[in-house]
Amino acid sequence: MPKQVDHQQRREQIADAVCRLAARDGLDAVSLRHVAAEAGVSMGRVQHYFTTKDEMLRFAFRTIGERIEQRMGAAVRDLGDSPGPRAFLRAMLLEMLPLSGTAKAEAPVLAAFLARAVVAPELTESLAADAPRLRGFVAARIGEHHPTAAVEAATLLALVDGLMLQLLTGQIDEPTAVATLDHHLDRIFDVR
Amino acid sequence: MPKQVDHQQRREQIADAVCRLAARDGLDAVSLRHVAAEAGVSMGRVQHYFTTKDEMLRFAFRTIGERIEQRMGAAVRDLGDSPGPRAFLRAMLLEMLPLSGTAKAEAPVLAAFLARAVVAPELTESLAADAPRLRGFVAARIGEHHPTAAVEAATLLALVDGLMLQLLTGQIDEPTAVATLDHHLDRIFDVR
Repeated sequence: MPKQVDHQQRREQIADAVCRLAARDGLDAVSLRHVAAEAGVSMGRVQHYFTTKDEMLRFAFRTIGERIEQRMGAAVRDLGDSPGPRAFLRAMLLEMLPLSGTAKAEAPVLAAFLARAVVAPELTESLAADAPRLRGFVAARIGEHHPTAAVEAATLLALVDGLMLQLLTGQIDEPTAVATLDHHLDRIFDVR
Repeated sequence: MPKQVDHQQRREQIADAVCRLAARDGLDAVSLRHVAAEAGVSMGRVQHYFTTKDEMLRFAFRTIGERIEQRMGAAVRDLGDSPGPRAFLRAMLLEMLPLSGTAKAEAPVLAAFLARAVVAPELTESLAADAPRLRGFVAARIGEHHPTAAVEAATLLALVDGLMLQLLTGQIDEPTAVATLDHHLDRIFDVR
C-alpha cells in the first residue's frame, strides 16, 4: 500500500505543477519539460507517471474536479443531519462558483481546460459523461414528484455554470451572483 | 472615405486571421508573425494596424462580439413588426448559443478569449463594461413593472451563458439546451 499511496501523491504533485503553470502561462505553455522543472522532478520521472501530455492534462483536470466534489461533500456535511433539499443544493452549488480563495486559484486552470475542450473534446470527456449523472442527482433532490424536475435540474446547473463564467470574466459581482442563485432556488422550492 | 473603409476592411481581415489561428492552435499560438502569414500580409503591415498583440486580440474579440450583435439584430428583425417580448428575447438569446455553423466556428475563439480573460481581464474589459447595459436591456424587455425584472434578466443571461458553455463542452445536446431556454422563458412570461 505505501508504494501505491506514494504513486498517487506523486501524480497529484505533478498535477499541481500543471495547474500552477497553466494559471501562470496558459495551457499551451504546459510541456513535459516545464512541468518537470515546476514539480522539481526529472523529465523521466514525469514520463514514468504520464506517457503523454494529454494524459497528464486529463489527470490534472480530473484532480481539480475531485477536489471540487470533496469540497461539495464537506459543505453538505456541515449542514448537519438531514438538511432540506434547498439547503443541500445551495451548499453544493455554491462550491461550483469561484467564491473561495481555493476556487479562485483553480478558476484559470478550469477555464483553460474548458476552452481547450472546445477543440479537443477528449480532454473533458469525463465532464460530458458525468453531466447526465449530475443532472439526475440534482433532479432527485428537486423532487421525484416535481412535475418538471429534469428540466429544473438542467436549468439550475446551466445557471450555475453561467454565473461561474460571468464571475470569472468580471461580468457580475459576487453578491449579485449569489442573490441570483438564491432567487432561482426560492422559485424552484416555492419559498416566496 | 474609401481609404477609411479600406482601413477597416484590412483590420477585419487581420482579425479573421487571428480567429482562424486561435481556432486551430489556441490563443497562445497567435503571434504577429503567424497572423501576418495567415492573413497573407507583411509583418510590417500588421504592425501598421495593431501596435501590440493585445490590441490585435482585443480587436478580434470585439469583431466577433459585433458580428453576434448583428445576427441578433437580424433575427429580431425577421420576427416582423412589434414581436412580443418573449419572441424578441428568444430570437436574440438563441444567437448567443453555438447552434448555427457560423456560431460554432466562432465558438473556439470565444472560448479561448474568455479563458484568457480570467488571467488577463483587460482583454475583455468591454464585456465587463457592457454586461450591466445588456442586463438592463433584457430587464426592460421582461417588463418595467415585473416585480423582479432585474434579477430575472441576470438569471436569463447567466442561463444562456451556462448553456453555451455546456454545449461547447458536450455536456448538453442542442434540443435539450433549447428546451431548457424555452421552459425558462415560459416561466418568466407565465405561458403555461
